[in-house]
Amino acid sequence: MTSRIQTQPPFFIGVDVGGTTIKVGVVDDNGRSLSKCVVPTEAKQPPEIGVANLERCVRDAVQQSGLTMDDMHSVGLATPGTMDIAAGMLLTPGNLPTWHGFPIRQHVANQLQKPTVLQNDANAAAFGEFWVGTAHDAPSAVMWTLGTGVGCGIIIHDVVIEGQHSHGGESGHMIVQMDGGRRNVDGRHGTLEAYCSATALVKRCREAIEAGADSSLRATLDAGQEITAKLIADAAEAGDELADRLVMDTARILGVATVSIMHTINPSMILIGGAMTFGRHDNIIGRRFLQRVKDEIHTRAFPIPAAKTRIDYASLGGDAGYIGAAGCARQRFTGKTPSGATAEQHAYPC
Amino acid sequence: MTSRIQTQPPFFIGVDVGGTTIKVGVVDDNGRSLSKCVVPTEAKQPPEIGVANLERCVRDAVQQSGLTMDDMHSVGLATPGTMDIAAGMLLTPGNLPTWHGFPIRQHVANQLQKPTVLQNDANAAAFGEFWVGTAHDAPSAVMWTLGTGVGCGIIIHDVVIEGQHSHGGESGHMIVQMDGGRRNVDGRHGTLEAYCSATALVKRCREAIEAGADSSLRATLDAGQEITAKLIADAAEAGDELADRLVMDTARILGVATVSIMHTINPSMILIGGAMTFGRHDNIIGRRFLQRVKDEIHTRAFPIPAAKTRIDYASLGGDAGYIGAAGCARQRFTGKTPSGATAEQHAYPC
Repeated sequence: MTSRIQTQPPFFIGVDVGGTTIKVGVVDDNGRSLSKCVVPTEAKQPPEIGVANLERCVRDAVQQSGLTMDDMHSVGLATPGTMDIAAGMLLTPGNLPTWHGFPIRQHVANQLQKPTVLQNDANAAAFGEFWVGTAHDAPSAVMWTLGTGVGCGIIIHDVVIEGQHSHGGESGHMIVQMDGGRRNVDGRHGTLEAYCSATALVKRCREAIEAGADSSLRATLDAGQEITAKLIADAAEAGDELADRLVMDTARILGVATVSIMHTINPSMILIGGAMTFGRHDNIIGRRFLQRVKDEIHTRAFPIPAAKTRIDYASLGGDAGYIGAAGCARQRFTGKTPSGATAEQHAYPC
Repeated sequence: MTSRIQTQPPFFIGVDVGGTTIKVGVVDDNGRSLSKCVVPTEAKQPPEIGVANLERCVRDAVQQSGLTMDDMHSVGLATPGTMDIAAGMLLTPGNLPTWHGFPIRQHVANQLQKPTVLQNDANAAAFGEFWVGTAHDAPSAVMWTLGTGVGCGIIIHDVVIEGQHSHGGESGHMIVQMDGGRRNVDGRHGTLEAYCSATALVKRCREAIEAGADSSLRATLDAGQEITAKLIADAAEAGDELADRLVMDTARILGVATVSIMHTINPSMILIGGAMTFGRHDNIIGRRFLQRVKDEIHTRAFPIPAAKTRIDYASLGGDAGYIGAAGCARQRFTGKTPSGATAEQHAYPC
């Protein structure tokens, strides 16, 4: 029953460096992942240890793909910020405490002896979905990545909006409640992340239970166990009222921020991805979450973008980052765009 | 003392259609305005009347410039939305109630017998400032236009962010206070425009006075006269406490929205323009307004964009729209960009 799809050269190495793990895959010219390898980042060790882990993981992934390093055209490298994308530098990435000021692109290029491009991880994930995921046929897309924090990536006509200081698409830090807003873990008030991250969801749940709200999750706390976003989503799926209310409120507030994005970028498509997507379409709470986001958009956005903007879940899951990073290498070093358009065709719609 | 600067062909006609007046200028290849003409829009008449006014104004402006229609390369046309920029169509512009569904680009092109490009008016104003105004040396810029409403235009590497449905840069309708926010004239809650437009400023001032606040503007109301944003700015300049508080709060909230823009677009520069700029740098309240915007940004934005993003007033005043429209015609029909970069040079920083 398996179809034998011909792999399509050239081949690219996609790397997604996180605070806990490094994911690597070999990706072909059509955006198909031919192999995947995961290793610990060991982010508390010096960055050279991390790069050695990364290199081992790359060589494993290449071997698994049945190809050789010589077959690899170039490398796309996604990391968390802060960073200087153009310079290939990490600046002060919160999840990589010993990697501050590390010229990661040069180190990886030297180790692998391949042209290497650096990209922000949320931008890379959005680019992956734009290339071969849910937004593969959209001219422009914005992707929310809900996880420990709230990431965002913006792609307009094949171009990643990196920003002048590599802070493009940091829209998890848009302000949705300027007065009286919740405080985020970074100390900022009223930002989207202060409401819609897994961290915020768990915090709001604990606060509600401590304030006396009735919930099946009280037993978890009483047993001395941690509440997680996953447990909250499961409880909501099982009908827990508090959990349901919190998940729906998360959707509402994500809808609010999405309206601001729609009125700024006005993309063709909005994607919701990341670890906290409540099961996507395949469970009740996932479907209700998405509907609640859409309802808020229809209440608040202008009629034309409200009617025309497609809103859906991302489809590449945890692979979006390394696939998108590979896509960035492909675009940077071969000039091939996800849409197939040339630079000239996209330029200057004005 | 006047210098004789040589005009630089080709020459472009810039047109800025507003609800009250149509402004037209002849603009040379360096973005210099050679002439300017203003006529009433007569927006309650059929749009053909408006286009006839526009044509008369164009012929006057060309004559004033000492050139002929044959010298004119092409036409840039800026109008308020809603619109379909790519199709050259007005959809339902609120300020042009009889022009709904009007294919304005085709009508103007037919009347003037010149290639014509359509652009949103706030986008065009931003493009003008990007070309030859305050942001002339910035790689990317976002411009707020404070007036009856709050307009916005976004330019990244010479490209106007028009959006998929011509709603790019409608960031005056970002949501800054999702819960308990003020209601805008369009019925939307908690948007930037509900706080920072001239309309909102006047409304807040009236409310405060009616609620008993002490202010020199009470006499204006008592005399049966209208309070205007200009009167509030003048009162603030003269030391009126209420007026000062309202103007500073407008600055604070504009700062909040600017942080959201900085964390999304991360432009090189943010400009503040429009009729409600409190005198720019040349009066006390103008300087305090700008400083208050900056203070809010420094409190709320990430350190790197907070430190590096330039924030300043626009410099072209009411001419920004037609100059920018002319710049759009120049870019669209000659391929010349404000930065001088080619499409290839800008494409795919990824």
